[in-house]
Amino acid sequence: MPEVLAERYRRVRQLTDSLSRPLATEDMVVQSMPSASPTKWHLAHTTWFFETFVLDRGLAGYEVFNPAFGFLFNSYYNAVGPQHARPQRGVLSRPTVEEVRGYRQHVDEAMERLLTAEVSAELGRVIELGINHEQQHQELLLTDIKHAFASNPLRPAYRPGEATGDGVATAPDWIEHDAGVCRIGHEIEAFAFDNETPGHRVFLEPFALADRLVTCGEYLAFVEDGGYRQADLWLSAGWDVVQQSEWQAPLYWERGDGDWKLMTLAGMRPLSPSEPVCHVSLYEADAYARWAGARLPTEFEWEAAAAGLATRGNFVESGRYHPSVAQVSREKTPSQLFGDVWEWTGSPYRPYPGYEPPAGALGEYNGKFMSNQFVLRGGSCATSEAHIRATYRNFFPPDARWQFSGIRLARDLAGARS
Amino acid sequence: MPEVLAERYRRVRQLTDSLSRPLATEDMVVQSMPSASPTKWHLAHTTWFFETFVLDRGLAGYEVFNPAFGFLFNSYYNAVGPQHARPQRGVLSRPTVEEVRGYRQHVDEAMERLLTAEVSAELGRVIELGINHEQQHQELLLTDIKHAFASNPLRPAYRPGEATGDGVATAPDWIEHDAGVCRIGHEIEAFAFDNETPGHRVFLEPFALADRLVTCGEYLAFVEDGGYRQADLWLSAGWDVVQQSEWQAPLYWERGDGDWKLMTLAGMRPLSPSEPVCHVSLYEADAYARWAGARLPTEFEWEAAAAGLATRGNFVESGRYHPSVAQVSREKTPSQLFGDVWEWTGSPYRPYPGYEPPAGALGEYNGKFMSNQFVLRGGSCATSEAHIRATYRNFFPPDARWQFSGIRLARDLAGARS
Amino acid sequence: MPEVLAERYRRVRQLTDSLSRPLATEDMVVQSMPSASPTKWHLAHTTWFFETFVLDRGLAGYEVFNPAFGFLFNSYYNAVGPQHARPQRGVLSRPTVEEVRGYRQHVDEAMERLLTAEVSAELGRVIELGINHEQQHQELLLTDIKHAFASNPLRPAYRPGEATGDGVATAPDWIEHDAGVCRIGHEIEAFAFDNETPGHRVFLEPFALADRLVTCGEYLAFVEDGGYRQADLWLSAGWDVVQQSEWQAPLYWERGDGDWKLMTLAGMRPLSPSEPVCHVSLYEADAYARWAGARLPTEFEWEAAAAGLATRGNFVESGRYHPSVAQVSREKTPSQLFGDVWEWTGSPYRPYPGYEPPAGALGEYNGKFMSNQFVLRGGSCATSEAHIRATYRNFFPPDARWQFSGIRLARDLAGARS
Amino acid sequence: MPEVLAERYRRVRQLTDSLSRPLATEDMVVQSMPSASPTKWHLAHTTWFFETFVLDRGLAGYEVFNPAFGFLFNSYYNAVGPQHARPQRGVLSRPTVEEVRGYRQHVDEAMERLLTAEVSAELGRVIELGINHEQQHQELLLTDIKHAFASNPLRPAYRPGEATGDGVATAPDWIEHDAGVCRIGHEIEAFAFDNETPGHRVFLEPFALADRLVTCGEYLAFVEDGGYRQADLWLSAGWDVVQQSEWQAPLYWERGDGDWKLMTLAGMRPLSPSEPVCHVSLYEADAYARWAGARLPTEFEWEAAAAGLATRGNFVESGRYHPSVAQVSREKTPSQLFGDVWEWTGSPYRPYPGYEPPAGALGEYNGKFMSNQFVLRGGSCATSEAHIRATYRNFFPPDARWQFSGIRLARDLAGARS
Repeated sequence: MPEVLAERYRRVRQLTDSLSRPLATEDMVVQSMPSASPTKWHLAHTTWFFETFVLDRGLAGYEVFNPAFGFLFNSYYNAVGPQHARPQRGVLSRPTVEEVRGYRQHVDEAMERLLTAEVSAELGRVIELGINHEQQHQELLLTDIKHAFASNPLRPAYRPGEATGDGVATAPDWIEHDAGVCRIGHEIEAFAFDNETPGHRVFLEPFALADRLVTCGEYLAFVEDGGYRQADLWLSAGWDVVQQSEWQAPLYWERGDGDWKLMTLAGMRPLSPSEPVCHVSLYEADAYARWAGARLPTEFEWEAAAAGLATRGNFVESGRYHPSVAQVSREKTPSQLFGDVWEWTGSPYRPYPGYEPPAGALGEYNGKFMSNQFVLRGGSCATSEAHIRATYRNFFPPDARWQFSGIRLARDLAGARS
Repeated sequence: MPEVLAERYRRVRQLTDSLSRPLATEDMVVQSMPSASPTKWHLAHTTWFFETFVLDRGLAGYEVFNPAFGFLFNSYYNAVGPQHARPQRGVLSRPTVEEVRGYRQHVDEAMERLLTAEVSAELGRVIELGINHEQQHQELLLTDIKHAFASNPLRPAYRPGEATGDGVATAPDWIEHDAGVCRIGHEIEAFAFDNETPGHRVFLEPFALADRLVTCGEYLAFVEDGGYRQADLWLSAGWDVVQQSEWQAPLYWERGDGDWKLMTLAGMRPLSPSEPVCHVSLYEADAYARWAGARLPTEFEWEAAAAGLATRGNFVESGRYHPSVAQVSREKTPSQLFGDVWEWTGSPYRPYPGYEPPAGALGEYNGKFMSNQFVLRGGSCATSEAHIRATYRNFFPPDARWQFSGIRLARDLAGARS
Repeated sequence: MPEVLAERYRRVRQLTDSLSRPLATEDMVVQSMPSASPTKWHLAHTTWFFETFVLDRGLAGYEVFNPAFGFLFNSYYNAVGPQHARPQRGVLSRPTVEEVRGYRQHVDEAMERLLTAEVSAELGRVIELGINHEQQHQELLLTDIKHAFASNPLRPAYRPGEATGDGVATAPDWIEHDAGVCRIGHEIEAFAFDNETPGHRVFLEPFALADRLVTCGEYLAFVEDGGYRQADLWLSAGWDVVQQSEWQAPLYWERGDGDWKLMTLAGMRPLSPSEPVCHVSLYEADAYARWAGARLPTEFEWEAAAAGLATRGNFVESGRYHPSVAQVSREKTPSQLFGDVWEWTGSPYRPYPGYEPPAGALGEYNGKFMSNQFVLRGGSCATSEAHIRATYRNFFPPDARWQFSGIRLARDLAGARS
Repeated sequence: MPEVLAERYRRVRQLTDSLSRPLATEDMVVQSMPSASPTKWHLAHTTWFFETFVLDRGLAGYEVFNPAFGFLFNSYYNAVGPQHARPQRGVLSRPTVEEVRGYRQHVDEAMERLLTAEVSAELGRVIELGINHEQQHQELLLTDIKHAFASNPLRPAYRPGEATGDGVATAPDWIEHDAGVCRIGHEIEAFAFDNETPGHRVFLEPFALADRLVTCGEYLAFVEDGGYRQADLWLSAGWDVVQQSEWQAPLYWERGDGDWKLMTLAGMRPLSPSEPVCHVSLYEADAYARWAGARLPTEFEWEAAAAGLATRGNFVESGRYHPSVAQVSREKTPSQLFGDVWEWTGSPYRPYPGYEPPAGALGEYNGKFMSNQFVLRGGSCATSEAHIRATYRNFFPPDARWQFSGIRLARDLAGARS
């Protein structure tokens, strides 16, 4: 196993580096909002994670690269120690990008030493966690730099552009599910986050799930119908945000002279009606669903529908960093369930029955965030293919929009309840 | 039915009046925080509810008392029209208390006229809703004036004091429940809020529920053990509040010279260890449960445990307006499940499968608040006995503390999951 | 002297009472913004002033009415002790208005006992200060209740209405002043505030002062010319306020269907073009002056122009509580220099050379506010006639608008500078 | 003259470049608070100034480097157009440092072309203004990067360290000035800012000015005497800031284990008692003066004392970027009046009698800031020697501390007033 693990470690670390390569040094420093982080910080924090939770505990004689980094690059692990204030990450010009690359190299070399030997099962699990942790930060690296670039009036591009896919999306179909008890959560040997466990039973009333994602074209009809001006379509907390933040469309939509444009990682592009709508908040997803006479699926409905399907799709490996045109489903299975856009569910993020966070600092990884957030499922165009699975629970506050987050509709099947 | 309804209408209206009688005119004007309202506003808003949703639609020739009141006393019904800003309710010295009493009389007289005749089933349901609505505001009237009095360094008393109950609470027992599908929600003819419907099935893994409430004495041990200074006991969002608001104990606890005192509606009193702890937020309830090696019940577990039990307890009718000493349970049923204190559950407030809010403005009553809140169950010492039932879902944001909100523990039953 | 002082004490106390008489109990409780105070608080604070600084020190055997009032009704005297937070004054329903009246009576009776005997010169000066202090709060009582009433959609009236004066204001004339050294400040025996001393010399370059106040009609031309939309007319800090607060006209101006209306202490009234403009901030006064090709006078220019003139005018004693129609000046002296509206000067509020605040808590009366404020001169329609004089320095922050504050223009006389 | 002007232009531009050379690319991007700017922004904004006010108007055929820069690098000239929000300057990773250097080169080359020919007197004055403008930004570049480095837990150094000067400061002496009229303001041919004009007369009552600056040792005695905990020493607005911002010492002072350290542009250093105290706000300067039984000089007293003295001192040219040890005065003239630290005066920043800002956008340079600021005099260790003069008026809000701002005391001479 170590060899395989070592290989996976290397690959993940290399992907992080290669994702940062198109950026200028200046790009890696900026923090465009409190919940985003500079690229440089992502590079260092993922490294700190291995240093703190693996090397410092598991490699005899390991010397910490710079003790001050423990304060600078600890994200939120109170059990490890105090942290540099999150909204102040963009104030740190030092360590420089080059010094951070030196830090990465220092840790990578130590990890190589550690991975030549047999590692304990427990340490192996922590390394596995570190790999998955870095994959999560790869996604944040992309969404954070997209936010920074969109905050710059020059609207820089992260990668060369590409023609928008065209294809017209056909009307969505509903895939029906009967009522019944189903099993939810991770129950096999492979790696999963603690929040996916334990496996347990949930009763689902009959429901139907749309076979494809909501498109920009459909969402535009909502916008043009005055969706952002009708209080009765919105959750009360969402309506407050709409008014205070003056939302009029998804994040990164800009109305030019008549036409809508979209900020992408390839720069500004005309809005394509057949693309899945993206960068909406839970509030917007919920309001759209109400307007459309439907609702969001629960995370359990989503998981039941995804069970047994292959995790294929448009992931970070495609290098497109943008959702693909909404596809027509074949064979009565939902299309684009994995990749493209994270799908908001109507489920608040809460522990499963019997949930136990790990002991120690790593117990802070997931458990303490189980309030004030909603669950998203399925991964996005910025997610690693190896990172996602049907039981995977992502979570963000209901007003967050800077992730690749989209909408799949569900509805109740009436008459079938008892 | 009209007669019965008329009688119930009168009784509820009279209770509101009698709850306001101990207050000085000045007391009825103040608003001590944005989420509280002046007594005067409660008196008027409940009246506006009947005027707007019953008389204006159901009584031929009814003349609105004062058209400006529609703006002043509409709480949050966007479909009815714009509203005076909530945090500015305490700025309104006019209409005076006497004018508001005149408004109440005007509406009561019209309601009497309306209730002499047969009312349609639909109108009857709205009147029923108005009665229940007023009962909810009676509870708010008491909790809001308690907050106002506690904000005044003079710490005035709403009612004459009374010796604290003594009795020592014995160790709690756990009442075990097997796994299985159970029915949740309101499914009978009697009145219930829309958010309690439709009835549906939920699967519960095996769990145990404490047979009594957590006491002040138990909670004090948590406080003295440094519970408010240990990050690892708290949800992340809760820990932020603890630090920003410098929480060190439940709301209304004050540390004097060595001893803890409690602000009550009878003024300041020594803390009684055998009373149920009260005025805690969801965050505190959750942190306490974690410290105690337990967790909060879900709202479904709570409802399953309450099903079939009589709704007896210490309600507003007792005139005590304070929870009674925690009682030892007999016969393996949970004590004080109804009345005394609302019990925080670990369930975010979300719609039941198949939930449909009513059409029109009354659809704003419950549905639009289904995010960023947690469910509380069971009623409190400020709730009307006739108002509560096993399926009743109250909800407040996780940092709210000014309601009579307390804690009942639950825990998973291991080994019995599959 | 004691007799005269006693008589003046009584008269001032009675005026405060009579100013509060038209109010409902509810009106006396509300605080419509942090910088305003409830009527009840003014009634109590002025009483606390005499209790703390006179009776507690000067009357043997005096018993404090209620020790808790020292915390509640201390405004900002840190040397006396801590204070109830200013923005929370509107939360205090107790003591009730009746209890506050009891407090006033208690202190008045003690003052009567004290004033039957000879009082020391020093104590006499403090009583004098207390009288002037209460006159200042009488003015605040009126401006604060005006703000509260204007914040209420019902727009209640404090006193019965009265037809607006008509008379058309003729074009203003400029009264010229030569360059030279002049004496500034209070230098005679009678009472004055410490901030008016010591007398000293100031050099004035030649200037001209308008012989009358700026009218609503003139100010309306500024509004209609887009004055609130042209950045170049405004001080930078003022422009920030205009944009953030969305100012479009003076406080209390409301645009109805075409016509402008004004909130007054007699309720809503049509705007009268010949009245002096009122309820403008320093920023607005300064922007108007720039638009009009003039500037505001310095406080020294104002004082030089006022020296030797009789302090006659429209004061609180007129019972109008509103500025009178702008009068044409006769005999080349400025009209309405005293009364009607406080006149903003371009002078920041700073100490005179050699200024020494009194020792002890009363040193906090004026000295510590000598930053971030501008000086206003001349008194208003809410000022007592006996309270004002040519050397009197009032001061408010440059964005304050709720006082009766208006504009008199000045300009430089060119060519005469050296 | 053009030749001289060209030479001065080149020298100033080169100094800006050389000041930015010790910085890493990353350092030039960060903005550590809303009132500071990134180095990169200073480099571009000073360039934009010449492009907009000189080249665009004065050089035929000049092509703007990048039209978008007009939005990005306009600081506050509303007459030129809208601006990128000031607090968001640190979000701009693009243009990169290299692109900004290209921008500078583009403009420098065009300026060379323009300066080979004769320029009109008016254009010459604007170039002169641009040179002085860039000198002001050189100072901000240093103070802003100092703030950024001090915000970084790594406390980086901008330049290599240097031993602290030692020499013990002797007791200050008072230099007395008689009462009288004196001339204030700029009245000769050479360049000066509009706010220094017109020359005019001011009457000064007799005063004395300290012959040297207040030292860190003296200020430490104030700190240790509880100066930051005594409300009666502070202006009320200053006391609010002390409490809200929890000030306990000047900016950049840090208490280690027992000893005080200082953040400097050479990194952390032990506090030297004989250095002038620096990085204090007006509020602290004022409180210190009160504690010391003195006061701050007015800007007119300062100018009267400085009249005729040579502008020699520790300026940016010394390359020390830190105030020198407080020097004993010889020959009854104040030492270190120029350079080292800006000296807070007790004078709010207001226009001189007869002041007229220039027409057009350049009228926004100084005039619109004439409220809510206090005047500082004399330049600092970050000021160019050629930039300063006795009539120079710098200005900052009373709570600003990140400039090199220090204290010189003054006092009234009693008995001599009339």
